[in-house]
Amino acid sequence: MRIAVINETSAADRNADILAALEGRGHTIINAGMVRNGAKPELTYIHTGLYAAMLLNLGRVDFVVGGCGTGQGFLNAVMQYPGVVCGHILNSLDAWLFAQINGGNCISLALNQGYGWAADVNLRFIFDRLFSVEPGGGYPPHRRESQQESRRILASVSAATHRPFAEIIALLPDSVIKPVLEFPGAAALIDVDSIADADLRAALRQRMM
Amino acid sequence: MRIAVINETSAADRNADILAALEGRGHTIINAGMVRNGAKPELTYIHTGLYAAMLLNLGRVDFVVGGCGTGQGFLNAVMQYPGVVCGHILNSLDAWLFAQINGGNCISLALNQGYGWAADVNLRFIFDRLFSVEPGGGYPPHRRESQQESRRILASVSAATHRPFAEIIALLPDSVIKPVLEFPGAAALIDVDSIADADLRAALRQRMM
Amino acid sequence: MRIAVINETSAADRNADILAALEGRGHTIINAGMVRNGAKPELTYIHTGLYAAMLLNLGRVDFVVGGCGTGQGFLNAVMQYPGVVCGHILNSLDAWLFAQINGGNCISLALNQGYGWAADVNLRFIFDRLFSVEPGGGYPPHRRESQQESRRILASVSAATHRPFAEIIALLPDSVIKPVLEFPGAAALIDVDSIADADLRAALRQRMM
Amino acid sequence: MRIAVINETSAADRNADILAALEGRGHTIINAGMVRNGAKPELTYIHTGLYAAMLLNLGRVDFVVGGCGTGQGFLNAVMQYPGVVCGHILNSLDAWLFAQINGGNCISLALNQGYGWAADVNLRFIFDRLFSVEPGGGYPPHRRESQQESRRILASVSAATHRPFAEIIALLPDSVIKPVLEFPGAAALIDVDSIADADLRAALRQRMM
Repeated sequence: MRIAVINETSAADRNADILAALEGRGHTIINAGMVRNGAKPELTYIHTGLYAAMLLNLGRVDFVVGGCGTGQGFLNAVMQYPGVVCGHILNSLDAWLFAQINGGNCISLALNQGYGWAADVNLRFIFDRLFSVEPGGGYPPHRRESQQESRRILASVSAATHRPFAEIIALLPDSVIKPVLEFPGAAALIDVDSIADADLRAALRQRMM
Repeated sequence: MRIAVINETSAADRNADILAALEGRGHTIINAGMVRNGAKPELTYIHTGLYAAMLLNLGRVDFVVGGCGTGQGFLNAVMQYPGVVCGHILNSLDAWLFAQINGGNCISLALNQGYGWAADVNLRFIFDRLFSVEPGGGYPPHRRESQQESRRILASVSAATHRPFAEIIALLPDSVIKPVLEFPGAAALIDVDSIADADLRAALRQRMM
Repeated sequence: MRIAVINETSAADRNADILAALEGRGHTIINAGMVRNGAKPELTYIHTGLYAAMLLNLGRVDFVVGGCGTGQGFLNAVMQYPGVVCGHILNSLDAWLFAQINGGNCISLALNQGYGWAADVNLRFIFDRLFSVEPGGGYPPHRRESQQESRRILASVSAATHRPFAEIIALLPDSVIKPVLEFPGAAALIDVDSIADADLRAALRQRMM
Repeated sequence: MRIAVINETSAADRNADILAALEGRGHTIINAGMVRNGAKPELTYIHTGLYAAMLLNLGRVDFVVGGCGTGQGFLNAVMQYPGVVCGHILNSLDAWLFAQINGGNCISLALNQGYGWAADVNLRFIFDRLFSVEPGGGYPPHRRESQQESRRILASVSAATHRPFAEIIALLPDSVIKPVLEFPGAAALIDVDSIADADLRAALRQRMM
């Protein structure tokens, strides 16, 4: 699985813990966001929310690990976009249930609140459980069908409530999209020329100029 | 403040606990959703998510208390819509931080996972802190300005990424919107004739026929 | 390892969950306490605390899994006795740290507070981590020596502060010791005739008459 | 109420947070332990456990706030002594339940594990609830009598299982008792000449020489 780790500024110092906790699992890790609190250029959770949604909607990654101080900010930012199912994950039980029940493609971690000694171990335990079960496999097993049905409907709701991603790209304020597109490494990850959807390719090209 | 409590089917048995915990605070409580697990007509978190967003976008309530088994389902459902800022709130510290930092209009409670003995007291403690601080007042105080700025930008993102609510109403599948519009009490709460926005009024009238 | 599970009356309904979570780990499980809330004969946490300490001090088991509604009652009861190191364990991280740092022989679980849906899975995760590390192995590794030193001193303190177990047996009020000694299965587990320590054997014989 | 705050070396940096959270409640606060991680002279949880038990058994304070990295070490240390009822308290609900159900005279806080941003606020919320209810008042109210009964029995068990405090003082290894008796401020707090119990006075005098 291709997993993007995207940290915003207030908890970027946790980036190393996240990378360490993801190590050795056979996944391709793309460390797309910040790596140190308050470094320049800076991304707030508004930016990392967009960045995460963009990488998911472009099919550049399969999963995003994000977060912020409490986890609530990144969660609300990334959920503004279509095609995102994001869990607020604080421990390994949350991870195990979310993976099976909600089958999401994103998690938001609390990286300052409650993030004390041994929180790096907690991250490891979270990923152990998150990636140990069949995504969307259902829990308990007899709820599998109805939970899958809920996820299918949620996807159709997401399509109905959001503008197409190309339109979104066109409409976002500069202050939101520019810091993302200009963030070191973003252009290569987005790789605009290889985007199959002509509208989306055009919209991104326009904003990247 | 006008607060809607909206329970889905899997945790509707907690409805009485929520109402009791909200009592005596001087708020107007509108108990809009289910009150007993598995009763008919049934609302899943897909429906309560729409219901919550509708009441907020129509200005019928100022705040929604929702949730589901883990809190992740309702959270992802309600966040499909514009104009919603929703926290995943498990304890009184979460509530206190979310109210001040994110200044949201919705919370999603975990009403089965971790909901054991004395969870009714925990709900009371959550509301004690949620409503004891200035919404969006900022925490810590010196972050007030930058947090307000983030909320303003988030609101503009929400407007850019979502279709207008009237369009959303028109586009939602029947299986999502019908159970909400036909839920006992919903028509009176929505009060379609008094909706100021002509497009939204027309869209809802159309779906209510 | 020989592990005793000892439930008191208020949370005895969780006994089946604990047994299920311990299954398949290659340990010998001795289900010594209650199996149903409020059944007769009844053991309170005062009794299960003594029972746990007795089985540990007699060398009948290597580890005790106990608890009560919040976990605080059993913890305070079992800690009245010498030779017990008990952790208050709520999640898998607690378990993993306690096993390595404190190297204890007992845990107290919260079996009503916070014990909601999926709490049985949480128990499984707790045991996964509790038994996956070297007891007293130290965490982080470089603290191993000083943590071992603390455990050795704690053991010497325990010997200095408590009366010998034989004296304790002689001094305990009837209301505390009788329900334990007369509990179904207790006599066989205690197996008084095979106790090597003559004083302890005599003291227990005296109370069993 | 006279409350002693007693920090050991690994989490002494939290001392200022604890003091701040206790402020303005009308209690007399005695800051008896360490105030900075690793400072000299150093107290481990073995020492703070004894110190806490000593102040309680001498009647010098009514309540002790202690803790360590995870809370488990101090808990196990202080529980070696008679007359101590100690809760492992992680949040405000724990505090509120423990105060009413167990009516204890000591709490052990986790001051590194889970101690992240806003943990100082959590401490304040803990003390808000700990001191807002009648100690031992019972919860739920109809369990008041049986919970009081359990506490009375626990006190009698504590007397039966432990040596008298004067004997304990005489028997403790130098490495345990010396660092406590010689800790700055300890002699004044203990105030050996004013101890009414002649045996205890003599035992302490002996160790203080």
